[in-house]
Amino acid sequence: MSAAPSPAAPVYDRVALIGLGLIAGSMAHAMRAHGLAGEIVGHARSAETRAVAQELFCDRVTETAAEAVRGADLVVLCVPVGAMAGVAAEIGPHLAPGATVSDVGSVKQAVIAAVGPHLPQGVHFIPGHPLAGTEYSGPRAGFATLFENRWWLLTPEDGTDPAAVARLRRLLEAMGANVDEMEAKRHDLVLAVVSHAPHLIAYTMVGVADHLRRVTQEEVIKYSASGFRDFTRIAASDATMWRDVFLTNKEAVLDILGRFTEELFMLQRAIRMEDGEQLHAYFTRTRQIRRGIIEAGQDTSVPNFGRTTGAKGE
Amino acid sequence: MSAAPSPAAPVYDRVALIGLGLIAGSMAHAMRAHGLAGEIVGHARSAETRAVAQELFCDRVTETAAEAVRGADLVVLCVPVGAMAGVAAEIGPHLAPGATVSDVGSVKQAVIAAVGPHLPQGVHFIPGHPLAGTEYSGPRAGFATLFENRWWLLTPEDGTDPAAVARLRRLLEAMGANVDEMEAKRHDLVLAVVSHAPHLIAYTMVGVADHLRRVTQEEVIKYSASGFRDFTRIAASDATMWRDVFLTNKEAVLDILGRFTEELFMLQRAIRMEDGEQLHAYFTRTRQIRRGIIEAGQDTSVPNFGRTTGAKGE
Repeated sequence: MSAAPSPAAPVYDRVALIGLGLIAGSMAHAMRAHGLAGEIVGHARSAETRAVAQELFCDRVTETAAEAVRGADLVVLCVPVGAMAGVAAEIGPHLAPGATVSDVGSVKQAVIAAVGPHLPQGVHFIPGHPLAGTEYSGPRAGFATLFENRWWLLTPEDGTDPAAVARLRRLLEAMGANVDEMEAKRHDLVLAVVSHAPHLIAYTMVGVADHLRRVTQEEVIKYSASGFRDFTRIAASDATMWRDVFLTNKEAVLDILGRFTEELFMLQRAIRMEDGEQLHAYFTRTRQIRRGIIEAGQDTSVPNFGRTTGAKGE
Repeated sequence: MSAAPSPAAPVYDRVALIGLGLIAGSMAHAMRAHGLAGEIVGHARSAETRAVAQELFCDRVTETAAEAVRGADLVVLCVPVGAMAGVAAEIGPHLAPGATVSDVGSVKQAVIAAVGPHLPQGVHFIPGHPLAGTEYSGPRAGFATLFENRWWLLTPEDGTDPAAVARLRRLLEAMGANVDEMEAKRHDLVLAVVSHAPHLIAYTMVGVADHLRRVTQEEVIKYSASGFRDFTRIAASDATMWRDVFLTNKEAVLDILGRFTEELFMLQRAIRMEDGEQLHAYFTRTRQIRRGIIEAGQDTSVPNFGRTTGAKGE
């Protein structure tokens, strides 16, 4: 077949994005690239952000969130988790009947509690979380391929209209994402393990280096080639977003951190006792998990993520 | 000028590499690429490793370390730190007068204590540590550009022959490395911060995920997109090498882990107390360090290390 693929019909006629940072920008770029939305309307609190979004990826920006959602058949809340309740309260009365409301927050139970009560009958609430991002933020950070081959988790409550869920899935899959559904409570625990606790630990290690008076900051930076620089990448993520994640997924994060500390103390004790066998066995086991991630297609097998020129994977 | 650059004269007539893994292999590839060694002789305990090295990057391999160092004007010990003493005892009597002995161990005080006593008068001992590597190991993992723009730290003791140090520097710089000299004790503390503690912490976090019964291993791997997968890369490094690092740099590593735990408990408490201001201030500070690393040229500014197609840095 030599015919060019015809552009897909829009999945939604009007999509409203509330909050115009990395995720909203990437969604808008992806929807435009694939012709998935009839119109993309955006709102952000900052006039400067609105101006950038208007220039780069929104068909129209509005000064209030209430205005942005009028007549939209899909509304996506892309603000930090701590700001969700306020936005939901503002837009609730202005939502079109039958509209779908989703979000991209990294925590789901807290978002459901914050947003749910403000939504009128007849609106479909389908909480979501794309497992995608970079260490950059803001309206200039987005790009159309951010979600390609990444998971986008949906946590609709029982009784949510299956047609509304299917339609949202169609949009997300057309942006390149792999969509999975799970319970909100389970989502928050899994994410505490694979994302929230690792981020806090990375922040902590970078903080230790920062404080250490015996080692000047210059030397830490100069010799960061191995290990530490991966931590600093993680620890460079958006401060407001992460503050809200820890405050709103407190229970699961504290649970995982407790387990982490126990485990760390065990290894620390093995070092103190010079128990080489225990250390070796532990390090051998963790290697397997890495292998699983590469096989699951969630990361590159190229050494150092391909940072090193000329490197080849095995 | 249109003439091709003439190959540099060899810096050493015969280089002996003891231990033929990632680092030795990369050194041999780099020395061959730039014509830095008249002959490269290698020894490894495993016959299989020797065969691979002979095929890929050694001019000659020998069945014993003693044989390999005969007549070599540079000997580089590329075995795990815990194996250094045994190798030094074996090669000591066979070293050529005036030869230079170096090593690539991640810990320096312990290597000096293990190797120094076995070296005869008239041999120059210049301990070294390239801050370069990947999560892969073995004789097939090496490549010629591994050391390009990476630090190679030397920790010669006072009174070491300056001409011998200058000659070794010339070799390392010709392989693309930036060479710095520092005291062994300072080296071990700096490395505990920027490399050893981060590795132990990464191992620990991956271990927590592995053990967590409520979350199946499948889910951890499946959703590892953010944060966690960077930890698994670090935690996939060679188990024997890292066991030896922790056992031989015990004091500095335990010091840094103590500081880390204090700091983590402070943040954990802030989460428990819901002190959002403290968290936000902390996360904002750690962002600066990342910026410093990128400015110092020790990492890429491309989001996710360039893993994400189409991503652009800021």
